[in-house]
Amino acid sequence: MRIGVVHGPNLNLLGSREPEVYGHGTLADVDAAVAALARHLEAEVEFFQSNSEGALVAHVQEAGARVDGFLVNAGAYTHTSIALRDALLAVARPYVEVHLSNVFAREPFRHRSFLADRAVGVVCGFGVDSYLLALRALAGHLGRAGGRRSVFA
Amino acid sequence: MRIGVVHGPNLNLLGSREPEVYGHGTLADVDAAVAALARHLEAEVEFFQSNSEGALVAHVQEAGARVDGFLVNAGAYTHTSIALRDALLAVARPYVEVHLSNVFAREPFRHRSFLADRAVGVVCGFGVDSYLLALRALAGHLGRAGGRRSVFA
Amino acid sequence: MRIGVVHGPNLNLLGSREPEVYGHGTLADVDAAVAALARHLEAEVEFFQSNSEGALVAHVQEAGARVDGFLVNAGAYTHTSIALRDALLAVARPYVEVHLSNVFAREPFRHRSFLADRAVGVVCGFGVDSYLLALRALAGHLGRAGGRRSVFA
Amino acid sequence: MRIGVVHGPNLNLLGSREPEVYGHGTLADVDAAVAALARHLEAEVEFFQSNSEGALVAHVQEAGARVDGFLVNAGAYTHTSIALRDALLAVARPYVEVHLSNVFAREPFRHRSFLADRAVGVVCGFGVDSYLLALRALAGHLGRAGGRRSVFA
Amino acid sequence: MRIGVVHGPNLNLLGSREPEVYGHGTLADVDAAVAALARHLEAEVEFFQSNSEGALVAHVQEAGARVDGFLVNAGAYTHTSIALRDALLAVARPYVEVHLSNVFAREPFRHRSFLADRAVGVVCGFGVDSYLLALRALAGHLGRAGGRRSVFA
Amino acid sequence: MRIGVVHGPNLNLLGSREPEVYGHGTLADVDAAVAALARHLEAEVEFFQSNSEGALVAHVQEAGARVDGFLVNAGAYTHTSIALRDALLAVARPYVEVHLSNVFAREPFRHRSFLADRAVGVVCGFGVDSYLLALRALAGHLGRAGGRRSVFA
Amino acid sequence: MRIGVVHGPNLNLLGSREPEVYGHGTLADVDAAVAALARHLEAEVEFFQSNSEGALVAHVQEAGARVDGFLVNAGAYTHTSIALRDALLAVARPYVEVHLSNVFAREPFRHRSFLADRAVGVVCGFGVDSYLLALRALAGHLGRAGGRRSVFA
Amino acid sequence: MRIGVVHGPNLNLLGSREPEVYGHGTLADVDAAVAALARHLEAEVEFFQSNSEGALVAHVQEAGARVDGFLVNAGAYTHTSIALRDALLAVARPYVEVHLSNVFAREPFRHRSFLADRAVGVVCGFGVDSYLLALRALAGHLGRAGGRRSVFA
Amino acid sequence: MRIGVVHGPNLNLLGSREPEVYGHGTLADVDAAVAALARHLEAEVEFFQSNSEGALVAHVQEAGARVDGFLVNAGAYTHTSIALRDALLAVARPYVEVHLSNVFAREPFRHRSFLADRAVGVVCGFGVDSYLLALRALAGHLGRAGGRRSVFA
Amino acid sequence: MRIGVVHGPNLNLLGSREPEVYGHGTLADVDAAVAALARHLEAEVEFFQSNSEGALVAHVQEAGARVDGFLVNAGAYTHTSIALRDALLAVARPYVEVHLSNVFAREPFRHRSFLADRAVGVVCGFGVDSYLLALRALAGHLGRAGGRRSVFA
Amino acid sequence: MRIGVVHGPNLNLLGSREPEVYGHGTLADVDAAVAALARHLEAEVEFFQSNSEGALVAHVQEAGARVDGFLVNAGAYTHTSIALRDALLAVARPYVEVHLSNVFAREPFRHRSFLADRAVGVVCGFGVDSYLLALRALAGHLGRAGGRRSVFA
Amino acid sequence: MRIGVVHGPNLNLLGSREPEVYGHGTLADVDAAVAALARHLEAEVEFFQSNSEGALVAHVQEAGARVDGFLVNAGAYTHTSIALRDALLAVARPYVEVHLSNVFAREPFRHRSFLADRAVGVVCGFGVDSYLLALRALAGHLGRAGGRRSVFA
Repeated sequence: MRIGVVHGPNLNLLGSREPEVYGHGTLADVDAAVAALARHLEAEVEFFQSNSEGALVAHVQEAGARVDGFLVNAGAYTHTSIALRDALLAVARPYVEVHLSNVFAREPFRHRSFLADRAVGVVCGFGVDSYLLALRALAGHLGRAGGRRSVFA
Repeated sequence: MRIGVVHGPNLNLLGSREPEVYGHGTLADVDAAVAALARHLEAEVEFFQSNSEGALVAHVQEAGARVDGFLVNAGAYTHTSIALRDALLAVARPYVEVHLSNVFAREPFRHRSFLADRAVGVVCGFGVDSYLLALRALAGHLGRAGGRRSVFA
Repeated sequence: MRIGVVHGPNLNLLGSREPEVYGHGTLADVDAAVAALARHLEAEVEFFQSNSEGALVAHVQEAGARVDGFLVNAGAYTHTSIALRDALLAVARPYVEVHLSNVFAREPFRHRSFLADRAVGVVCGFGVDSYLLALRALAGHLGRAGGRRSVFA
Repeated sequence: MRIGVVHGPNLNLLGSREPEVYGHGTLADVDAAVAALARHLEAEVEFFQSNSEGALVAHVQEAGARVDGFLVNAGAYTHTSIALRDALLAVARPYVEVHLSNVFAREPFRHRSFLADRAVGVVCGFGVDSYLLALRALAGHLGRAGGRRSVFA
Repeated sequence: MRIGVVHGPNLNLLGSREPEVYGHGTLADVDAAVAALARHLEAEVEFFQSNSEGALVAHVQEAGARVDGFLVNAGAYTHTSIALRDALLAVARPYVEVHLSNVFAREPFRHRSFLADRAVGVVCGFGVDSYLLALRALAGHLGRAGGRRSVFA
Repeated sequence: MRIGVVHGPNLNLLGSREPEVYGHGTLADVDAAVAALARHLEAEVEFFQSNSEGALVAHVQEAGARVDGFLVNAGAYTHTSIALRDALLAVARPYVEVHLSNVFAREPFRHRSFLADRAVGVVCGFGVDSYLLALRALAGHLGRAGGRRSVFA
Repeated sequence: MRIGVVHGPNLNLLGSREPEVYGHGTLADVDAAVAALARHLEAEVEFFQSNSEGALVAHVQEAGARVDGFLVNAGAYTHTSIALRDALLAVARPYVEVHLSNVFAREPFRHRSFLADRAVGVVCGFGVDSYLLALRALAGHLGRAGGRRSVFA
Repeated sequence: MRIGVVHGPNLNLLGSREPEVYGHGTLADVDAAVAALARHLEAEVEFFQSNSEGALVAHVQEAGARVDGFLVNAGAYTHTSIALRDALLAVARPYVEVHLSNVFAREPFRHRSFLADRAVGVVCGFGVDSYLLALRALAGHLGRAGGRRSVFA
Repeated sequence: MRIGVVHGPNLNLLGSREPEVYGHGTLADVDAAVAALARHLEAEVEFFQSNSEGALVAHVQEAGARVDGFLVNAGAYTHTSIALRDALLAVARPYVEVHLSNVFAREPFRHRSFLADRAVGVVCGFGVDSYLLALRALAGHLGRAGGRRSVFA
Repeated sequence: MRIGVVHGPNLNLLGSREPEVYGHGTLADVDAAVAALARHLEAEVEFFQSNSEGALVAHVQEAGARVDGFLVNAGAYTHTSIALRDALLAVARPYVEVHLSNVFAREPFRHRSFLADRAVGVVCGFGVDSYLLALRALAGHLGRAGGRRSVFA
Repeated sequence: MRIGVVHGPNLNLLGSREPEVYGHGTLADVDAAVAALARHLEAEVEFFQSNSEGALVAHVQEAGARVDGFLVNAGAYTHTSIALRDALLAVARPYVEVHLSNVFAREPFRHRSFLADRAVGVVCGFGVDSYLLALRALAGHLGRAGGRRSVFA
Repeated sequence: MRIGVVHGPNLNLLGSREPEVYGHGTLADVDAAVAALARHLEAEVEFFQSNSEGALVAHVQEAGARVDGFLVNAGAYTHTSIALRDALLAVARPYVEVHLSNVFAREPFRHRSFLADRAVGVVCGFGVDSYLLALRALAGHLGRAGGRRSVFA
């Protein structure tokens, strides 16, 4: 099981950006925590961050051929990028939409997602834990599809 | 740590209701899985299901005094009940919004939640796993607030 | 053929509530007329009225196991209850939406129904006759599905 | 009692148009069934079909002088024709809105009717039975207004 | 003169629910203050609280026969319950809509009331005083209708 | 100066249609009054009425070649016919929009006109006088354009 | 018959304001033309112009006692003043809404009128002639109401 | 305790304006009743009425320096005046929004208030009593803020 | 391969209607150019123009039996006719939506099409070429469906 | 170069109104700073403030004859006054829209301006500096139009 | 004649992306087919594809200097990119909007185009043929503008 | 004081893009003028232009560490980029929104800004002067915050 983790714009600032909101952990810390859980779940992970919509689209296209699914925290592009939606649908891999913050508690333009309706599911509001939960969720989804034992056993 | 699990209308039908969508597990199975994970997380759980908005309101009011937080799958009332929102806010306990299905992939009237903007976060789309993930999420949230070690360590 | 007749909130007041609009017949009179026609159509009927959304949900869940279809006059809950919609879909029985009054001639918030798009059809505006017509409609629908002779022959 | 049955655009195709939806009966079959029930109800009926909004308006104007009420399946004009609404109101005859299909289960632009709010009532979703039910409904309405015995006795 | 006071969902929590907003008085304190003013106005009062929409509907139906009017603080159901509106209209008793808080200073979904357009009037924003003012208002309304002396003399 | 008067659907019923609203004068009476005023204004007039949108379109196309302007009371088609708008624009003749009733005092769907923004002006609400006023208005408009003396001198 | 002519904001600029649109005639010229037609119709007229909403309200209140009806060109206040609407309704005098320009050919915010739905009718788009036509319209309306001979005879 | 009573446009017509709606009492009668209750509550009152938005703004600015709060029946300006809102906020005095009629039972454009969300509360629908109730409400609000005894004792 | 070309209202004016927009070619010229290309593509074509919605509906019904597909320039009916949509769907022939002008550069009410979502595709903005392109498009579509060689080879 | 500075409602309160927002400078201080910069730019300025929409309209009409352009801080009337827009357009002088606060950071009803689309430009959010910047902007605009040297040289 | 063909995001996946929808041809195949037709039309073509909005903007800016027009299939950016619209308008070259699929048959957010209203025209729904048709359309447009013979001769 | 100037998409075309609108000055000319004023204000400036949303986001992230504030003319991304908003908020530097043209005089989709509500203020409509004014505005804002003397002294 191989999983691609996709971080959208401004997530590279994690740790320095509004730490009272997002905490002091950096994106490297997030990736380390995800990698550790992945090892525990016997899954491989790869990470990608970009501030560019086009680069994210290109990455999804290219990574789509080697991963079984994606964790996608598209940040602001969640709410504006039909191109990213199209890329995810084009490679036909299951994905989970992730957000650090609770987007429903924020500005109205963050309540609309171009990704959510075609995702397996959505996890938001739990900070770094959102990624870890989403990884378990995706692993569970892929495991069931593949007939493996539950990651929740 | 004590957590109240609140199941809304029609969840009592789990297992018999559209099993191709919701699977063959019953609500008792869900509760058993949640209880097992709770034991693992050293948390106590209690369960409540009702088809009645008023009974759910009353339960939240009364359970609010003895639990540290709620997992709430309000089902259809997610989209129509301001009374349940008010009850959750009145008892001032953190809660996580849970859904078995991906509500964003369903009818437009299921895209609006009266609970989400005041929740810690939202988990939807993963079937029974949604509850287990939400339990971890809430335990993590409560643990951090209480200075405990992370449930994800 | 067994049919469940479901009356929603305030229908218990029939006869005393705005008789210039709804006539002087009581709910018992309606039920008697429906029962008489049912005998004529060689169908069994059972009746249920409640002012509580939750009780209506519970009734539909429970009656769903023994009836072939429902006549549903959900009254005000037609326009506000996703829970009742979910219950009807969960038990997977065909139903006909019924109204005594012509809801399209009333306040705009009565023009939206959470039940209509999944119903077999809708009958409204004919007072007590709405029930009798809907019973014939449902009997015809069930009869055709069951290969029986038309109730209109 | 004399009743005008008005069929709108494309209803002349009945039987050949999407038979899996509308069945194999032709418009002549519908008219024959309506006529048979009318005889049973001791009512006279006349039939008119047109694909032209103007012809339907003209027919309603002219037939309005000799009928006691109308069954109107205006088809697509239900949703676009204020002229037909005006004609029905101008001749001041009670009418029942009829549809073969359940318009609420179809495209959103079929959910709006320019006729419904001034109709006696609406019957939709029951195929040919919609006409037969509407005929009974209108006969009942006219009978009550005229002091006759109920057609449901 | 007999007046029914109807308290909706979560009002039973008064005193413990967000006391910095609603004060430390309990619902019993509110009822006592209302009762005292009623005695002063030579009116009888009865009280009812429920968290259940259906129970509120049933209460209004039943109390409608013995009271001259209602004070209604329907809480969250103000904004979601057409059933309660129907019950109040069915019993044809004048009512005053009451709120402790200023609903117009709160979330947009609290700006819509299903009760206000058919009420005698609305009083909101004055905490417990809202009830006392509404009682005077209703007494004045009933008194004028009944030819009594003004309660404001 | 030659002016075409165009009457839309249901105007042929004038005199018999809701006479308490539209008066007892017939369309022939209207035409006679318009013709009399036209003679006074030294203008020629021709009249056309149809219930058919297509016939109105065809008439405007054909009459456009011989008239200097139109009085258009398109009735219900005012609110639904882009085709009539297109015909009027295609023949490039100035026109005045006329209504017997005050459309702004009626249903919301009569507040939108597909003709008004390209008309010289609008006259509505004055019964038959609407036509006479509109004729004066159009004659004034055409007269000024043609350098004639004002019809209001 | 006495008629009050009410000119709203910026109409005092007539003749100097965008003369290519409104022509070179001044407001005094308009008033003179209206007065001349009034003499012809054996009506008295009085004129009032103000740029102040409050002054217009006060004028309507005060003039309402001595006139039989109003011609109202409220200019920009047509689209923003509920106070002027209220004044016109309070004095209970029929009024005709007048505009020099065709408001439907202008910005969308000029398509809404707070006066039109309670006016006798509307005349717009004919420059100064709009006033003259409206005067005839109002005189005709008042004459019919008063049993006088038609001003159009 | 000194309270400013602010009456908006057309309230000077009270008694003569639609007396079947507003009663036969004049604005002077209202002011006298308010003054009498104020004496009873040991409060001073001052009164101001204007039809001019600007004059109301200026009055609030100037009176704001000497009163402890306002009763504001802004009439039509309730729904259109941001300037009045700004004036009330600028002088930072608590105010109660008052209406004689139940604005929620009237035209939709009266359902929006530019004042309500920043008011202490709203009282509407009780005729002259609305003012008396609002005075008690404001006196209670100010009394509590000032530590005085309740005016409802 | 046989193709029906359907021209809607006002297209008969081509050449004389706003020639600076639509050019000086007549509808006969268009038909001749289409026929020439059809011969080149070894397809038969037939032409129909009407200003009447009903006649267009009737034509589509009747021609549907003998053609393999339609080119439809429904003109104004594109935006208002559900009846024409229904006719095209009823005969179940592929069709291409054609417009001479770029409808997206025109009034907003021309941006909505009742035909586009069920068409094979849309061609607009190229004057007469729109028809020729659409003919190639439809021929290509039909050819591929029929296993013929591409018309673009 | 002569410039008119127009201050709308409540700006006379500057310095005392919410000083934490607007600072302690008074309107006289603003005017002094503007006058000083105007001298530096070799421009004449005149100032006008009113709380009355009508007075502002009248001032713009009258000042329009002697100034080359306006700085307009219409305060609340920015969002509600079509009359002020009309006055500015009628005198055909360029104007700059000015606001002390950032209106886009405030209530949604302050996001709409009836002045902005016809202004030279907009400056908002910089407190008193907004006026100074707008003065430079207008002087630059007028200078360029008049062929003068740039005020920014 | 030189034409730039611009392919937006995810079009590089053609052939592998949902082949049942888009066919098995690759983007290289499309480009080859376009190039072949261009040779036939004696036009030069150049091709560009990018997943990056910024790169597409930059390309249009730079290519705009050497091409006579563009074929633009902006994919998802059609619906979200004002920047691309601005680039196309900035270089002032005619362009045709192209889509492989019928965007009107897909999600509502694909019905809005930021490019269509300024395009020469739109071609959508014909798969690869959309490009070939659009090339003919653009060549015809450019040829007519340049006085060349029609490409349809 | 160090200020970052950020130019969005298509601003690199300045001078060649629609010069009748934007003038003949190039972006280098703008930057030179800004630099000159900055020297006058004793501020350092740096410049960045990109057509890529991602590059703009990355630049703001990186420059945010060394500048005291930003001038942001995000061009088309003003209306579509939540990512740029997030970057500006993440680096927590004050910024002024700048536009060459008056966006409120252009297409409706340019009236919405994702940046304005969190900016210090907005300057638009003055061509190159918009930048110079915004620089003064930002310098004034930063100077006041830093206790420096006003740049307007």
